[in-house]
Amino acid sequence: MSCVLAAGGLTASDLTALLLGLGVLLGLARTLGEIARWLGQPAVLGEIAAGVLLGPTVLGRFFPGLHEVVFPAEGGAFLALGGFLTVAVTLLLLIAGLELDLSVVWRQGKAALLISLSGLLLPAGIGVALGFGAPMMLGKAEAAPVLPFALFLGIAMAITALPIIAKVLMDLNMFRTDLGMLIMSAAMVDDLIGWMAFAVVLALMVGGPHDAPTLSVAGTIVGTLLFAGFALTLFRYAVHKALPWIQARTSWPGGVLGLMLSLALLCAALTEWLGVHAIFGAFLAGIAIGDSSHLRERTKATVHDFVSYVFAPVFFASIGLRLDFFSAFDPLITAVVVVVAIVVKVGGCGLGARLAGLTGRESWAIGFGMSARGAMEIVLAQLAKGAGLITDKLFVAIVLMALITSLLAGPMIQKVLRRRRSVKVGDLVTDGAFIRRLESTTAAQAIAELMRTLADRLGVPVEDAIRQAVERERLVGTGLGDGIAAPHCRLPINGPLVAVGLSDTGLDFDAADGSLARMVILLITPQDDATVHLELLSDLAHTLTDSEAKAAALRSTSYMEMKAAFNTVHPPTHA
Amino acid sequence: MSCVLAAGGLTASDLTALLLGLGVLLGLARTLGEIARWLGQPAVLGEIAAGVLLGPTVLGRFFPGLHEVVFPAEGGAFLALGGFLTVAVTLLLLIAGLELDLSVVWRQGKAALLISLSGLLLPAGIGVALGFGAPMMLGKAEAAPVLPFALFLGIAMAITALPIIAKVLMDLNMFRTDLGMLIMSAAMVDDLIGWMAFAVVLALMVGGPHDAPTLSVAGTIVGTLLFAGFALTLFRYAVHKALPWIQARTSWPGGVLGLMLSLALLCAALTEWLGVHAIFGAFLAGIAIGDSSHLRERTKATVHDFVSYVFAPVFFASIGLRLDFFSAFDPLITAVVVVVAIVVKVGGCGLGARLAGLTGRESWAIGFGMSARGAMEIVLAQLAKGAGLITDKLFVAIVLMALITSLLAGPMIQKVLRRRRSVKVGDLVTDGAFIRRLESTTAAQAIAELMRTLADRLGVPVEDAIRQAVERERLVGTGLGDGIAAPHCRLPINGPLVAVGLSDTGLDFDAADGSLARMVILLITPQDDATVHLELLSDLAHTLTDSEAKAAALRSTSYMEMKAAFNTVHPPTHA
Repeated sequence: MSCVLAAGGLTASDLTALLLGLGVLLGLARTLGEIARWLGQPAVLGEIAAGVLLGPTVLGRFFPGLHEVVFPAEGGAFLALGGFLTVAVTLLLLIAGLELDLSVVWRQGKAALLISLSGLLLPAGIGVALGFGAPMMLGKAEAAPVLPFALFLGIAMAITALPIIAKVLMDLNMFRTDLGMLIMSAAMVDDLIGWMAFAVVLALMVGGPHDAPTLSVAGTIVGTLLFAGFALTLFRYAVHKALPWIQARTSWPGGVLGLMLSLALLCAALTEWLGVHAIFGAFLAGIAIGDSSHLRERTKATVHDFVSYVFAPVFFASIGLRLDFFSAFDPLITAVVVVVAIVVKVGGCGLGARLAGLTGRESWAIGFGMSARGAMEIVLAQLAKGAGLITDKLFVAIVLMALITSLLAGPMIQKVLRRRRSVKVGDLVTDGAFIRRLESTTAAQAIAELMRTLADRLGVPVEDAIRQAVERERLVGTGLGDGIAAPHCRLPINGPLVAVGLSDTGLDFDAADGSLARMVILLITPQDDATVHLELLSDLAHTLTDSEAKAAALRSTSYMEMKAAFNTVHPPTHA
Repeated sequence: MSCVLAAGGLTASDLTALLLGLGVLLGLARTLGEIARWLGQPAVLGEIAAGVLLGPTVLGRFFPGLHEVVFPAEGGAFLALGGFLTVAVTLLLLIAGLELDLSVVWRQGKAALLISLSGLLLPAGIGVALGFGAPMMLGKAEAAPVLPFALFLGIAMAITALPIIAKVLMDLNMFRTDLGMLIMSAAMVDDLIGWMAFAVVLALMVGGPHDAPTLSVAGTIVGTLLFAGFALTLFRYAVHKALPWIQARTSWPGGVLGLMLSLALLCAALTEWLGVHAIFGAFLAGIAIGDSSHLRERTKATVHDFVSYVFAPVFFASIGLRLDFFSAFDPLITAVVVVVAIVVKVGGCGLGARLAGLTGRESWAIGFGMSARGAMEIVLAQLAKGAGLITDKLFVAIVLMALITSLLAGPMIQKVLRRRRSVKVGDLVTDGAFIRRLESTTAAQAIAELMRTLADRLGVPVEDAIRQAVERERLVGTGLGDGIAAPHCRLPINGPLVAVGLSDTGLDFDAADGSLARMVILLITPQDDATVHLELLSDLAHTLTDSEAKAAALRSTSYMEMKAAFNTVHPPTHA
């Protein structure tokens, strides 16, 4: 039976393969992505690994028949999956554009410009030189001309990975610092110029062996520049002016979502027609829309969550789907690409930072931060491979380079600046320090009951610790209201400790709203580190502003449910 | 140039057509959907109209060349769009399943069962009888057997439209009432049984002219029932048990989103393979996942918003894309289908309600509420058309029947129960009753300044109204804290009035937190209607719990921005 939808043309077996393929890609990519995160690595590492497992490298090698059923290499399901992946990567670039905030760049001024230009020109120059010097050795495709290949290599060295950088800075509590904003601004300029340049490179490929070009090279370049100029000025202004009207007059959030997505798709279609790939249009649409201060954080979060956790994992997993990573791995090309990529970017950005008057340590931090290439580099390499510019060997080398530079950024900044990762209440609580039903009937008893669960991890006898915490409680009650209390004290320990208890009857922690505490969160922080203490209190306060998470915490009936409540809080919004 | 992605196979012109087609479909569908809403109609009406405009009915008739470029009827872009639409309708059924809450049904007990069974069996029986009695007259496809056609007609008469019903009930402030929950429960039972029965009908079509069947009829039916039983019991239980762990241990909301979407796709692939279309599996996955009390409202909202405002409009617009509505419109079939659909459903459900002991008015309300067929009926008809069961004429008649019954539900319940739509502060404020910069320096002056903007709409001289409001203010200050005040009074008017003013300096409305009011919202409600007053205050309170909307309201610099702030509030969550 063929359940052909009106606009279909696909048979039932095509649809089965398409849905099965998407479901398997998404499921395995998200699973391995989470495992990568547990190991302290970026999720994209696991997502790519999922594709390697499902592609010719593993599944296709050992179960070629099964691989062909789930991911056929021709026919309706093949084409439909390809179309879906194009939409996925287009939306991925839309959210990358949404994150790029031009106004932040203007505010940072000269220093940002110096860092970004130095961090752009040096890597790009060396990349181009290498491309001209040894194209075949580095993996230029036989049929591709040298000029676009060398330009591509320059761009591949020069671009950065905004999402990775933003994530690293947030983890280290540096996102809102001057240094953090400087790194972000410089990275934005690099990406903007890098992607514009790549559009030109793709235009130079027009008239390649595959397809009849719609426009001449000059037409493509002029058209692309005109569109970019239009998108970043008039288009951006029009969206900013229209948003209040859209948000006031149309359904919420449907009006904005529909506008955002349809504009992104239309801009993508335009740049694809111009000959510079769809994603460039979506990226520019994202910048133009995301720049408006009228756009609500919640709308951005909806698009961001759906795209990063549904479309993006499928896209990254698809990379390994048609490529045998074993046979395409070339140690020499990989080593050259990885070493050059790190040296030129750390050197270029660090040099710019020194010239802008930053300290040595700060300059190293900026260098390593901006060296992260991340997901965007992989998208770029994917396009270059699709356009017949590079060999599979160089592609694999660039994917590995993107992963390695991204893995390095966090630990290196941490080491250079001696920062530590920010702590969260939810991450500190453990199964052993959780009491489902507190037996206590007073605040002091509850503090003692909870403190005993931490006994062997305290630096002092548990009775001393209890005495200190209870005394602290007597000074001012730590009831936060709404049924939650957070008694705390500081002890000579190395790292912070948290214990959580639930009380069915409620305990009097002298809250301002008069409510009895049904959840008691005991916080113990190191005596010699005041910032940890403030960080934990501020994280707790933020958690409690999320009314759904707070309600879930209060009605939790097990350790896992309590832990889930603390984990399902949306991060503070960054304007 | 061909920018072939790894899993691609699509040419640049295929991709251009795909992205352009999707962008145009989404943009026009959302635009007409909003226009439908302004006219007080469901958005789906406008979304379908967009497809009629873009399809052979209008665009294809007047600009056949353009239609062929944007929506080619063969080739890569055609297949890719078909695949995308399948994913879209699959996810649409996922969110329909998420809305279906089995525990609500159990709680309603006997009355719900009586209404749903009576509202199911009577329409289904008459539908089947008509199908057997006059199959060709009503639009059975030539080649299709009579039995599945008659069964389809019975199901088409019997199913309801949960989302439409929920929306109507919320609009009328009835969602949380006993009557509202009763209607919802009965509708859920109808839908569940209706879709199960439709799966069986599709199975009966196995071995039709189009495609080699994977399973025998018996195999399909047994497999489907086994899967449905598994999904609603073990699978549902496993998801409920796993959710706290997923939410505690994985990234938020990525872990849950990935799980939800990949399970939906895999279940969809399974039912497609079984021979009963993908959407049935996604629907069951949605029920199983949505039933868990551990699932966060925010996660549901993310999926719901993205699917209803991006995937669903594209799907509904695609309905008109391959069908000429003019030539397929048959007045006789349409009249029969519409009249029978209304009579059997209002009759069947109303009868059940009377038997369950409800009053006559309530029974009429239940009948008209459950008569709404909405979007799900259209999905059903689309599948039947795709499976070669019905003619284009019957398809168009069913689409119109779905629209007409949905349009009737709200007004009829309103009329029968004498309910009115709930009022919202944001809907009442007008440009004329907005003051960008209040000149007043005291609360009393500000009340007077705002009252004068309403002067010609008050039932009493404006000075009297001012005196009353100021006296009310003197009793207890109406400062709500956080810079917002809501002075109010009740006058002999017909409907409520609202005026809003912003103050740069802040005004003392005696707020508990000591803050000066920078936004003053004056509420005037009818003297003889206490509920409007409470409704407005409760809506205002809900608006102010949304911290992003509140901040946007306070920093708004124009009428439109202020209005946008009140409109961009997420509705209260319904567990």
